Amino acid sequence: MTKGKLFVISGPSGTGKGTICSKILDQRPSIRMSVSMTTRTPRNGEIDKIHYHFTDHDSFRNLIEADGFLEYANVYGNFYGTPRKQVMEWLDEGIDVILEIDVQGAMQVRNSYPDAVLIFILPPSLEELRNRIAGRGSETEETMKKRLGAALNEISQVGEYDYSVVNDDIDIAVDKVKSIIVSEQCRVDCENVELTVDKYKEEL
Amino acid sequence: MTKGKLFVISGPSGTGKGTICSKILDQRPSIRMSVSMTTRTPRNGEIDKIHYHFTDHDSFRNLIEADGFLEYANVYGNFYGTPRKQVMEWLDEGIDVILEIDVQGAMQVRNSYPDAVLIFILPPSLEELRNRIAGRGSETEETMKKRLGAALNEISQVGEYDYSVVNDDIDIAVDKVKSIIVSEQCRVDCENVELTVDKYKEEL
Repeated sequence: MTKGKLFVISGPSGTGKGTICSKILDQRPSIRMSVSMTTRTPRNGEIDKIHYHFTDHDSFRNLIEADGFLEYANVYGNFYGTPRKQVMEWLDEGIDVILEIDVQGAMQVRNSYPDAVLIFILPPSLEELRNRIAGRGSETEETMKKRLGAALNEISQVGEYDYSVVNDDIDIAVDKVKSIIVSEQCRVDCENVELTVDKYKEEL
Repeated sequence: MTKGKLFVISGPSGTGKGTICSKILDQRPSIRMSVSMTTRTPRNGEIDKIHYHFTDHDSFRNLIEADGFLEYANVYGNFYGTPRKQVMEWLDEGIDVILEIDVQGAMQVRNSYPDAVLIFILPPSLEELRNRIAGRGSETEETMKKRLGAALNEISQVGEYDYSVVNDDIDIAVDKVKSIIVSEQCRVDCENVELTVDKYKEEL
């Protein structure tokens, strides 16, 4: 049984990585997306186990102690993390898994699971990113400046990733990420080479 | 200017790697295929510079001396090789190049150009390979045995390749090779990371 592949997708807020992920899940039902765990309270419309696994601080801390996260972070007093168990079970079953997480989380995943494939989604330009964020409304010049600075900070770490995809046209970007997934499935895996060769040898 | 990528496609005779390559060239006119040089005499219908660069032994040997080949071999007294100059020019111009060569040639290319991406085309089974070869006619049981043995010998070196694609359905196989090409174009390249990041920085 070939193991599944773990794909990590990052990129500045506003680059459309969420849309890319959901389109890939629609088009490739064999891929699963991991649901994060958080200690923050659900917002309006958020459903437990769909948008997040909502939990309390004590349970989260216990899971940290038990090395139960592929990655986690404390953001303004609330914890967010990717529980390790479900992801590992899927991979063992041969199911490919996508994580949509930030750069810091991606670096943690790479350390705890070096076979992870890291994909960075880039905006066509900061100008275009500014337009997209502005389109969502309600940003002051101050917060916009902060967000673009944060975006640039994330982009400057693209060198830590295996692949980068510019999201200029959403369909082209989705196709590129799908190509990366297909190609990683075609990668020659030292562990499986002998099995592959033996399969042919048995026929002679 | 981003350099082009060099893709090497190998696989036992009869796996359909030639068909895969020509379909990819049809569908992606931006990719070029290198034309081999040989000292053997042209067969009926073979056109110089299209099927091969036909040349004489002295010229071929001089080009070997001048390190003018990415790979070459002597097969039953005739030389076959991939001239280095044209391929390098295309890569420098940002054009992706495909070489359809055997395992020995692929190993030489990997040594002389370590950035090359090596793709191995596998038959679904030796039984199916036997059927395909038999379908072309005129094989004795003796030569068939030899060809399947040679195929198995090549397959046993799949571990030296970056990717393997099983050619069960030709269209699926072509899509997979195209995905590998697209994904390699998305690869984060240490040489280009700074340029990428600087492009965004200039905007702030």
